Amino acid sequence: MTLTDTTSTPQPGTKVLTEKSINKHVKAVEYAVRGRIAIRAEALREELAAGEKKPFQTVVNCNIGNPQQLHQKPITFFRQVASLCEYPDLLQDQNQAAVSQIYPQDAIDRAKELLKQVGSIGAYSHSQGIPSIRRTVANFLQQRDATEQPGNPNDIYLTQGASDGVKTILTVLTESSQTGIMIPIPQYPLYSATLSFIDATPVPYYLDEEQGWSLDIAQLTATIQKARQEDHVDVRALVIINPGNPTGQCLSQQTLTDLLTFCYDQRLVLLADEVYQTNIYKSDRPFVSFRKALLEHPSADVRNHVELVSFHSISKGMIGECGRRGGYFECINIQQSVRDQIYKMASVSLCPNVHGQILVDLMCNPPKEGDLSYPAYQAEVSGIFESLRRRAQKLEAVFNAMEGVSCQSAQGAMYLFPTITLPAKAIQHAQQLGISPDDFYCEQLLEATGVCVVPGSGFGQVKGTYHLRTTFLPEEHLFDEFCGNVQRFHTSFLQQYKD
Amino acid sequence: MTLTDTTSTPQPGTKVLTEKSINKHVKAVEYAVRGRIAIRAEALREELAAGEKKPFQTVVNCNIGNPQQLHQKPITFFRQVASLCEYPDLLQDQNQAAVSQIYPQDAIDRAKELLKQVGSIGAYSHSQGIPSIRRTVANFLQQRDATEQPGNPNDIYLTQGASDGVKTILTVLTESSQTGIMIPIPQYPLYSATLSFIDATPVPYYLDEEQGWSLDIAQLTATIQKARQEDHVDVRALVIINPGNPTGQCLSQQTLTDLLTFCYDQRLVLLADEVYQTNIYKSDRPFVSFRKALLEHPSADVRNHVELVSFHSISKGMIGECGRRGGYFECINIQQSVRDQIYKMASVSLCPNVHGQILVDLMCNPPKEGDLSYPAYQAEVSGIFESLRRRAQKLEAVFNAMEGVSCQSAQGAMYLFPTITLPAKAIQHAQQLGISPDDFYCEQLLEATGVCVVPGSGFGQVKGTYHLRTTFLPEEHLFDEFCGNVQRFHTSFLQQYKD
Repeated sequence: MTLTDTTSTPQPGTKVLTEKSINKHVKAVEYAVRGRIAIRAEALREELAAGEKKPFQTVVNCNIGNPQQLHQKPITFFRQVASLCEYPDLLQDQNQAAVSQIYPQDAIDRAKELLKQVGSIGAYSHSQGIPSIRRTVANFLQQRDATEQPGNPNDIYLTQGASDGVKTILTVLTESSQTGIMIPIPQYPLYSATLSFIDATPVPYYLDEEQGWSLDIAQLTATIQKARQEDHVDVRALVIINPGNPTGQCLSQQTLTDLLTFCYDQRLVLLADEVYQTNIYKSDRPFVSFRKALLEHPSADVRNHVELVSFHSISKGMIGECGRRGGYFECINIQQSVRDQIYKMASVSLCPNVHGQILVDLMCNPPKEGDLSYPAYQAEVSGIFESLRRRAQKLEAVFNAMEGVSCQSAQGAMYLFPTITLPAKAIQHAQQLGISPDDFYCEQLLEATGVCVVPGSGFGQVKGTYHLRTTFLPEEHLFDEFCGNVQRFHTSFLQQYKD
Repeated sequence: MTLTDTTSTPQPGTKVLTEKSINKHVKAVEYAVRGRIAIRAEALREELAAGEKKPFQTVVNCNIGNPQQLHQKPITFFRQVASLCEYPDLLQDQNQAAVSQIYPQDAIDRAKELLKQVGSIGAYSHSQGIPSIRRTVANFLQQRDATEQPGNPNDIYLTQGASDGVKTILTVLTESSQTGIMIPIPQYPLYSATLSFIDATPVPYYLDEEQGWSLDIAQLTATIQKARQEDHVDVRALVIINPGNPTGQCLSQQTLTDLLTFCYDQRLVLLADEVYQTNIYKSDRPFVSFRKALLEHPSADVRNHVELVSFHSISKGMIGECGRRGGYFECINIQQSVRDQIYKMASVSLCPNVHGQILVDLMCNPPKEGDLSYPAYQAEVSGIFESLRRRAQKLEAVFNAMEGVSCQSAQGAMYLFPTITLPAKAIQHAQQLGISPDDFYCEQLLEATGVCVVPGSGFGQVKGTYHLRTTFLPEEHLFDEFCGNVQRFHTSFLQQYKD
C-alpha cells in the first residue's frame, strides 16, 4: 500500500483482494501438517472415490493425530452422557423406561448433573468456561499431581482445543516483532505458524536426536544469550512440548525443575504444551506436569514467581475427540490485569463451544472404581493404550530395520520422527523440482502407497538431515499391511535413486 | 520494548507479563456486550446464589442474543439427530426397538446419513468444513434465493460461529494499519474489536435513526472520499449488517443493488453480516440476501466483479444454538490465491468443531413437508417466531411510552436500540464518576432490577445521544414483569435526577 494508491481514482473491475494486496503475515504462515502433501492426499481420495485407478485402495492419513478418523472407537460413557445432554427430553420421567434400556444409570445421572450446572448446551456460556467445569478441572489437577495445593477454577480457561489457547497466549505476550519466543526444533508447527502470523520472533533451540531428543540447559542458555545480546531480541517465553511432538520424548521431574530454574533466572514465561500427558509408553519415564514441578520446586522464589501457562486437550490421550475442539489452559503466577485481558479476548469470541467443554468435564472426571460404567470405561481406555504402545513399538522396529533409517523410541505422544539418509541422486532430483528432499520422499510415498505423512522440514531439523513424522494410528488389523507398504516403498525408492 | 531492555541482565522475580508489557493491540480491544456491566451481572448472580439480599430475585441477561440461556427450547428434531450422532451404537440393529420408542424414524435416518458422510463427529474434518455439509449449504443458498445459479460448495467455509469467519476475513484483507474498513454506527462491536486487534482503521458511516436507521449512498460516498483523500486511508471493504444489529432495520433489494453498485464503483469488498436473516418481523420488508442481489444485479460488471463475503450462523434465527459455535461464510468473486490463504489459516486451527457443522447441515436442510417430523418442527419454529414478534412489539411500545425515550421498530434481528434523553443531572453525575452517561444509566438499571443491557456507547452513537441495546428474549410468561421493572426503574431514575 502506498499513499498514492488511496487517493487515486479506484479502478472498478479489478480485484481488491489479491495475493499481493492481502495481509503479509497471513502469507508468511506455513503449516505442513495440513500443507501441500495433505492437500494432495485429499485430492487422491476424491480421485479414488471417482473410480480412478491408483497403486493403492485407500488413502491413510498419518499426517495428523486424528484417531477417530482411523476408526478408533470413542469412549462409550463420554458419548452416552453427551448424547443425553443433546436431547434433555430423554431425562424426563415419562421416557425413563425406554431410556434406561439404552443408557446406563450413571450416564443418566451425570447428564442430569451437567445440565443442572450448564443449563442448555445450546447457550453461550461464561467466556472463560462454565464455572462448574473449571472446578472439575481444578480438582483433577490436584489429584493428577498429588499436590497439597488445590487447583483454582479462576486459573483455568476453557478453550476450543489446545491450539486456540496457545494462539491466545502467544498473542497476548507479544509486544512487538522483537518479542522472542523460544521453541524447540523440531516443533509442532502451530508454534512457528502462530509466531509468523503475529509477527513475533521464534528463537529456536535444538533437541538432541542422538540423546533421545533431549534438552540441554547449557544449550538453552547459549541460545538465549545470543538472541538477547547479538540479535537484540526481547526473549519472553520458553515453549516446552512434553511429551514431545513430533519427537515423543518425556521429561523427568529433575529436568522440569531445572527448566523452571532457568526460566526464573532468565525471566521467561514457561508455556507447557502437555496435550500428550496420558500417551506415555515407558514405565520408567512417567509424565510429570510442569504444574507439579513448579509447586514442588525447592526454591520459593521459583515457586512464587515463574509465570506458567500449561495446555491440555480432549483431542489426544485415549479420548481422541479432535472434532469437538475442546481443551483448557491453566495460568499460574500470571498477574490479574493480564488475565483480565485474556478474558476480554475470550469474550469477543463469546465462549468456547459447550460440547467441547462438556468433554473436558468428562475427561477430568471419568467413571471411578465402583461406578456402573467403570469396568467398560477402564477396558476401553486400556485397550486403546495397549494397542497404541504395540503399534509404536512395531513401527519403530520397522523403521530401524530399513536401510539408512534410524528412529528414536517414542516415550510418549502419537508420532515417530525417523531420520532418513537419502541418496544423493534423490536429493539432486528434489532440488531440480525446487522442493526439499524430505518433501520429495513423502510425496513419492503418498503417490505409491496412499500413506500420507509430513516431511521433517515442516517441523524443523538440523540442516542436511531429513526426517518424516508419522502417526502410529492405522488400525491394528491393518497395521502389518501399512508397515509393509512403507517398507516396500522405501526399498524401491532406494533402488530407484541409488548412487 | 527498548533495545536496552533486551540486553540488560534480567531481573528474576519480576513479572514478565504486565499490563504495560503485553500486546498493545489486545489492550486496545473493547467489547461492551460482555464488558464491565455484563461482568458485574455475573457477580450479582453469584451474590444472589450466595444468599445476599438484592432488590430483585434473578439477573436477566438482555445484553446478548442468547435465547437458550433464557429457556428457549431447542428445535427437537435437530437435537434428536445430534443426540444419535453422539452415540452411534444406537443406530445398530440390536438397539432398534428401544431407540425407535424415543427417536422418530426420520431423525434416525438423518443421523445415519450424516455419519456416513462425516465418519465420526470426534474426528478432525476437512479444514474448510465437511464436503457434504458444504453441498447442503450450497443447495440451501440456491433455494433461499430462488436463483438459477446453484451455490458452489467450494465457495463455502464452515466456521465456529459467524464471529470466527468475520475475524478471519477482516484479518486476511488487512495489509497495514492504513487499511480501512467501513462499518456502520451503531455497529455490533465484534467489528470495532477485531479492527482494534488487527490494527486496521475503522471508517465509520452513520445510520439515520429518524429514518428507521436507514443507509444513504450519498453519505457513504462522502465518507469514503474523506477517508481516502483527507486521511489517506486505503479503504477496502464495506460492512453491512442486515438485518441490523443493534438497530434491526432490514434493507430492500433496491438498496442492496445500490450498495453493490457503490462497491463496484469504489472498488470495495462487501462483507454482509446476515446472521439475522430469519428474524424478520414485518411482512412488507422481507429479507433479501446480498448473494441474490448480486446474482440478479442488472450490471454484468457488478455481477462479475464485486467481491462478496456473506456470513451466517446457527446461533440466531429460531434455532439459537449459540453454545455450539457454528456458521459459515460464502465467498463470491474472490480470487483463488486468496482463498488458498483463507484455507491455510483455517487449517492451522485444524477444523471448525464438527458439532457446529452438523447443525449447519440441519439448519440448511430441515424437515420438509411430508416428513414425519415436519409438523412438530414447523410448530416449534412458528411458535418461537410469533412469540419473538409479539415481544418485540410489546417492548417497543413500552419504550415509546416512557418519558424521554424513543424507539424505532425492529424490522428484524433480536434487539431494540432506543434513544434515551437523560436529565442533565444524571449526565453530570456520570461525568463525575468518569463513565459515559448511558453506561451509568445501564449500571443503575442492573443494580435496581437485575436487568443487564448494553450501553449505546458500546455500539457507537451520534455524539450527545444516549442509547441502550436490549434483547427482547426474556420468556413470554415473565415478559410483563420484565417490562414493568424497566418502566418503574426509568420513572424513578428520572425522578432522582430531574432538573
